[in-house]
Amino acid sequence: MDATLALDLNGKLTLPLRLLRGEVLRARTGWAGALQAGQFLKIVDPCGKQAGDFWAFNAANLDEHLSAMHTRVWVNRLCPRPGESFHTNHRRPILQLVHDTCGVHDLLTAPCDEHRYRLYGVQGEHASCTGNFRQVMAPYLGDKPFVPQPVNLFMQVAVLPDGRVETGDCPSTAGDCVVFKAWIDTIVALSACPQEFNPVAGWYPTDLHIGIYEAA
Amino acid sequence: MDATLALDLNGKLTLPLRLLRGEVLRARTGWAGALQAGQFLKIVDPCGKQAGDFWAFNAANLDEHLSAMHTRVWVNRLCPRPGESFHTNHRRPILQLVHDTCGVHDLLTAPCDEHRYRLYGVQGEHASCTGNFRQVMAPYLGDKPFVPQPVNLFMQVAVLPDGRVETGDCPSTAGDCVVFKAWIDTIVALSACPQEFNPVAGWYPTDLHIGIYEAA
Repeated sequence: MDATLALDLNGKLTLPLRLLRGEVLRARTGWAGALQAGQFLKIVDPCGKQAGDFWAFNAANLDEHLSAMHTRVWVNRLCPRPGESFHTNHRRPILQLVHDTCGVHDLLTAPCDEHRYRLYGVQGEHASCTGNFRQVMAPYLGDKPFVPQPVNLFMQVAVLPDGRVETGDCPSTAGDCVVFKAWIDTIVALSACPQEFNPVAGWYPTDLHIGIYEAA
Repeated sequence: MDATLALDLNGKLTLPLRLLRGEVLRARTGWAGALQAGQFLKIVDPCGKQAGDFWAFNAANLDEHLSAMHTRVWVNRLCPRPGESFHTNHRRPILQLVHDTCGVHDLLTAPCDEHRYRLYGVQGEHASCTGNFRQVMAPYLGDKPFVPQPVNLFMQVAVLPDGRVETGDCPSTAGDCVVFKAWIDTIVALSACPQEFNPVAGWYPTDLHIGIYEAA
């Protein structure tokens, strides 16, 4: 992860950032961490074609979380564009999307889970985004069963004119990234999707990289 | 509510139904009730242009609920069509949509809530679909904060080719209805949407009618 980062904010301002913490998220695994208000989170797909399922919670009240259905109402889009913010179930912004080299993310599709892999016919253990989420969020959420709709980073789900939804090839190329800025103190969770039965991880799950930055 | 109902199943079979329980759901209020596996639920918009926010839970395990994000993955559509089923977060069918005279429903948009009416500038009390849900589901769910994405019956939200989502006029006309069949014992909840600041309830909230039927 780059130790510093120059963030070009819509061509209007270049903001230098300093790395506070870098993580390599191994293929098929999950990670959770804290972001303070004003800090930046960079998520990189180093190899390309790797979806990452992503969640965010208000650190001061874990009942408040990034909510796809509330975000859609606010931005009037299926997914925010750079400059726009993801909103919570309390109808306020939690993370601003400040940089996005991929431009294609999905807020419609459920995270993979044990039930999905059973339906594929997998008989033994199989990592899943839901399982990763539960594991890494257990210190914060305990055994609460609720799993919010994730932001499926670098995942392409098209809505066709007749209402069909169609999962396509993962659109990211090596080095693609997103950067979020936290509006409030936030707990974030990320799963490097272990799905190899459809193209969301390019049929071969790989690592993701994570960096937390502050303004330099 | 009709005491009997002849349900035309895709032109292949006419199934006579007998009314077990009928309810008038007053404008701006909520209702919850139990459906046994195999029973049918009819929801009618008697005046037209009235959205109803609708939820369903597995009666034997309230952590399992109708889930929009899992339903989309199963039917590969934004909303099931007659014959298709709504699915749960355990990836199994809970309700089959067996009849639908409207054909337009929304599984993308958050239910209205106190935060929404505060943002409009409402200072006093205002009914909301989320508030109605919490009230009528309290005997089942207690004070669990989680509110699943509802099925917004008779609500029109278009997805445009560029990814914008656009709330349109409520498409239902007087007498439009949907009929669901329960695959499992189910607790259902319905809110007659009290929204009068956009067209989802035709700018003037009205009643909905509910009937629970069994095969005659």
